[in-house]
Amino acid sequence: MDRRSFLLKSSLLGATVATGLPAVSLAALGAEEPKKEAQLRLASQDGRIPGKDMKEKLAKLEKWGAVGIEFGGGGLPGRVKSIKDGLAGTNIKVAAICAGYAHNLLNDDPEKRQQCMQSIKDILTACGELGSPGLIVVPAFNGQTKMNNNDARKLLVDDLLPQLGEHAAKNKTHVLLEPLNRGEAFFLRQLADAAAICRDVEAKTKNDGVAMMGDFFHMGIEETSDMGAFLSAGKYLHHVHLASRQRNLPGQDERSYVGGFRGLKMIGYQDFMSLECGCKGDPEVEIPKSFRFLEDQWKQATL
Amino acid sequence: MDRRSFLLKSSLLGATVATGLPAVSLAALGAEEPKKEAQLRLASQDGRIPGKDMKEKLAKLEKWGAVGIEFGGGGLPGRVKSIKDGLAGTNIKVAAICAGYAHNLLNDDPEKRQQCMQSIKDILTACGELGSPGLIVVPAFNGQTKMNNNDARKLLVDDLLPQLGEHAAKNKTHVLLEPLNRGEAFFLRQLADAAAICRDVEAKTKNDGVAMMGDFFHMGIEETSDMGAFLSAGKYLHHVHLASRQRNLPGQDERSYVGGFRGLKMIGYQDFMSLECGCKGDPEVEIPKSFRFLEDQWKQATL
Repeated sequence: MDRRSFLLKSSLLGATVATGLPAVSLAALGAEEPKKEAQLRLASQDGRIPGKDMKEKLAKLEKWGAVGIEFGGGGLPGRVKSIKDGLAGTNIKVAAICAGYAHNLLNDDPEKRQQCMQSIKDILTACGELGSPGLIVVPAFNGQTKMNNNDARKLLVDDLLPQLGEHAAKNKTHVLLEPLNRGEAFFLRQLADAAAICRDVEAKTKNDGVAMMGDFFHMGIEETSDMGAFLSAGKYLHHVHLASRQRNLPGQDERSYVGGFRGLKMIGYQDFMSLECGCKGDPEVEIPKSFRFLEDQWKQATL
Repeated sequence: MDRRSFLLKSSLLGATVATGLPAVSLAALGAEEPKKEAQLRLASQDGRIPGKDMKEKLAKLEKWGAVGIEFGGGGLPGRVKSIKDGLAGTNIKVAAICAGYAHNLLNDDPEKRQQCMQSIKDILTACGELGSPGLIVVPAFNGQTKMNNNDARKLLVDDLLPQLGEHAAKNKTHVLLEPLNRGEAFFLRQLADAAAICRDVEAKTKNDGVAMMGDFFHMGIEETSDMGAFLSAGKYLHHVHLASRQRNLPGQDERSYVGGFRGLKMIGYQDFMSLECGCKGDPEVEIPKSFRFLEDQWKQATL
């Protein structure tokens, strides 16, 4: 079908009906005003913070002005009590849980996919108990699947993600799809693409269980505009990873966060931003310096 | 390689070096302020305007406040003189040239790909003579290629688009990549994705010959935020197609353009916006009404 005959067919029949496409999103219709004022809630992955145990790490995070901590998801269901006990009496909340499930969602072996699904559900249940905004999920790293993007997207949107979304929503938490750079995962590289997946799943499930995150390191490679990317992520954005261009602490190279932070302010972002990065120099000195740098970038991000 | 060992490797070696990825874009570093005030330059495809010949169509466009006209690219090299003669003495410029080349860039037959390349180059030369901002190119509609997205992107970025970009830049015009909805072309569906392709090509050619457009009809299906999409398109955006949600005239259904127009104002958009749509009712009445509706939406798009 050529361009003009498709156009004619579309306008005669109404293309969204004729092609079986999802209904247009409300956001695309122009309602893009945030409801709440955005918050800068600084956090870190636990492995980034020096300290011999969780107690020491949490004390440092509090002293340095952070309010969240991100843990790996491996064995999380068995660690819920110890994490809860550790956080009790501090100002620190669980910022997110990062991966740690079995296999991957796009595994070519259906049995491994199912093991992955069960494992993600178990960690999501634990996320709910911990009040975590969600569990970070990468559908597949490069080399982990033979599926092309078209088939992978269909499998996720039609089958796997609606199931995970139901489970996440029931546990008041989210699956957090993470776009990575092409060197790690070609399938999902941009926030707008992840947001479109979230919207398509939401249209099926009528819940917000499938959501997403953005990582400033990957965004620096794959996005042409941090602000545009976060605007496209919109209400689906429930986590942010912080790293510099060279994947060190923010402030340790020329990477600016001002454009991205403007986007976060425009969407009224309420969740955490968590360090996932290396560190040049002494973490005891450099991490609090990085947090102060980020607070300053946040102030510079005027609307 | 698991997540943590990749992270370690990245931060030790500098991931942009280690993975052979392109350098981060300036836009992603936070410089997102437009240089010029955006312009609303209304236009239409010629087939949309009633009239027995070009003279009549141009007279109507002028009367209705439009400043551009978009032609199909078929046989364009032989039509340059007649188009120039027709436009002489009017306020109407060529808004863009739409398709009309042989085959498609992602054709599985290398010979047909080469015919497509030559055909696009010939039309680009004519675009240059006509002062057109560019030639609209869809790399492949669904069913026109067996290549997966990964291979298709590599072929375009590493081989075909740099050649076309050189030719376009030499003729002071642009290849305008057009993202469509998944029902027409799965390969390229979002503006952020097209912009990333433009940026990757620009990094090779050091010219701006490969650019892009956005179409409000397709965007209504594929984007979660028109504003976010246009911000991501940024300086690479050199054309816009106008259509309603049901692919009729803007204003003929509930589709809003305000969010998208905000995005265009933020990037200081300077090129044309062209009707590519059906029409409910009498075009003589409905088209000028639609232009007035668009002017009102533009006014509502306050920053």
